[in-house]
Amino acid sequence: MARVLTLGITVLDTVLGLERLPSGGGKHYARARAEVVGGIAANAAIAIVRLGGEALLASRFGDDLVGERLQADLTAAGVDTSRVEWLGSVASSISTILVDGRGERLLVNHSDPALFHGPASSFDDLVVDAVMTDTLWPDGAIPALQRAREIGVPGVLDFDRMPRRMTGELLRSASHVVFGQQGLEASAGTASIEAGLRAAAQETDAWLACTAGGNGVYWLEGAALHHLPAFPIEAVDTLGAGDVFHGAFALALGEGQGIDAALRFASAAAALKCMGFGGGAVSPSRADVERFLAEWFDPAVVEPR
Amino acid sequence: MARVLTLGITVLDTVLGLERLPSGGGKHYARARAEVVGGIAANAAIAIVRLGGEALLASRFGDDLVGERLQADLTAAGVDTSRVEWLGSVASSISTILVDGRGERLLVNHSDPALFHGPASSFDDLVVDAVMTDTLWPDGAIPALQRAREIGVPGVLDFDRMPRRMTGELLRSASHVVFGQQGLEASAGTASIEAGLRAAAQETDAWLACTAGGNGVYWLEGAALHHLPAFPIEAVDTLGAGDVFHGAFALALGEGQGIDAALRFASAAAALKCMGFGGGAVSPSRADVERFLAEWFDPAVVEPR
Repeated sequence: MARVLTLGITVLDTVLGLERLPSGGGKHYARARAEVVGGIAANAAIAIVRLGGEALLASRFGDDLVGERLQADLTAAGVDTSRVEWLGSVASSISTILVDGRGERLLVNHSDPALFHGPASSFDDLVVDAVMTDTLWPDGAIPALQRAREIGVPGVLDFDRMPRRMTGELLRSASHVVFGQQGLEASAGTASIEAGLRAAAQETDAWLACTAGGNGVYWLEGAALHHLPAFPIEAVDTLGAGDVFHGAFALALGEGQGIDAALRFASAAAALKCMGFGGGAVSPSRADVERFLAEWFDPAVVEPR
Repeated sequence: MARVLTLGITVLDTVLGLERLPSGGGKHYARARAEVVGGIAANAAIAIVRLGGEALLASRFGDDLVGERLQADLTAAGVDTSRVEWLGSVASSISTILVDGRGERLLVNHSDPALFHGPASSFDDLVVDAVMTDTLWPDGAIPALQRAREIGVPGVLDFDRMPRRMTGELLRSASHVVFGQQGLEASAGTASIEAGLRAAAQETDAWLACTAGGNGVYWLEGAALHHLPAFPIEAVDTLGAGDVFHGAFALALGEGQGIDAALRFASAAAALKCMGFGGGAVSPSRADVERFLAEWFDPAVVEPR
């Protein structure tokens, strides 16, 4: 069983269901409500456990009731929270997400700038099969990715969003960088995935890829741009799909799967997540993903049938 | 020292400060955040304690972390929460309030319909100097107001909003009904305060009044409509001002003050609240109100100078 460190932000999402999204002021009454764990690193950790791996989460909570709730939900999901750091004088990160009847979303996040600032406690004794980080806690991510290099395991950087301050060191520390389209555009200054990946290749020797939602995933192998189309599924809820993709990809690499197999595994996990409602909490099981892959792929070819 | 039972809803308000209120979907980042106790009965209880009274809160919390937070904050404010009922399978009531730079507000509340449904535990042994209820938990309010009649103390109904199901019994159980303008219009079917109050007088023998924000308060004495103008203050934040008014009014009646004095006291408390930012949490002290009243009133006349 592979063990993966996921590092980055954890958020308590309060999802409120309304007939339609409000505009301007006024009083509105929500018909439905759910409080769920959110944030890239936390969602990825939950996905990894569901996929049969072990997940160790490095994140920061405020020492408050939101933090307690996050801790309880993550523990119930089987995530190892022993590397979570509790900050006494800072509030845990929260988002309110308003969702209308057609799935449109308004998200308002509050994160104290002090929460994801400053180094994590030492990774000198960390032994895992893979590391996955987001870009939102660079002071934590860089040493974790460097430790992955040191012990010779994959260090995957989920570059979904530009960090508050950009540092080439973040890109250079990872062995694998998976951009989101927005992250790549913001970082490379071009809307072209191919040009963006080639620009990033000037900055780092990491393996480079970019996920493009319903358009699948693109990656560089030497001079060549490769593409794996997304599965043509009926998406019900894409919230958290990227986080599931990244968690599954890091797990597969940690298990020793090759790039092609790991990308197929991650795409299948994200596709299955999109077919169920409930954010990152409806992450598929290992058996679900293997059944799905067996239905779609001839073991001899890479492209979906 | 007078002891007042306040009965009704308690809400945890999460206030998020944004540059401007969002319209439609998207991701937004709040600059500031505060979590404060809200809800008519809870705000009134906090106001009563600040004004030198004792407040006993009858409300319902879900047995969850939001409930724990409400309990902790109310206890810290000096409110007696021994009559709060904890429901195991229902979530505590919450509101998210987005506030822009100019004080415009978007409020989204979620309250489980099961939370404020069904009778409160018995009031047979209740001994207080006054009772104040909102309209949002009628199954709790009616027996509390009836108990006030039984023991011969004022029973004030804060009719700010139409209850989910309207019942004449609610109006008839109170000794004093203070409408908000919206509540009076919805209940009486007329935008005229005078006509509305006269229509309500057909339904109940209670003393009847209506608060009109910056226009002061109107009340019936027999056939005559009386009016107390609001204090001409610079309002900074009106959130919770109505709750402070109702708490202060019930406290003053419970202390044995006459109607005129009680209305002046309540108006002064509400005006002082509006001069400070921070919702019901910036309720004024007894000394503040008495100093304010001494500056404004000649003891011999009712109207402000």
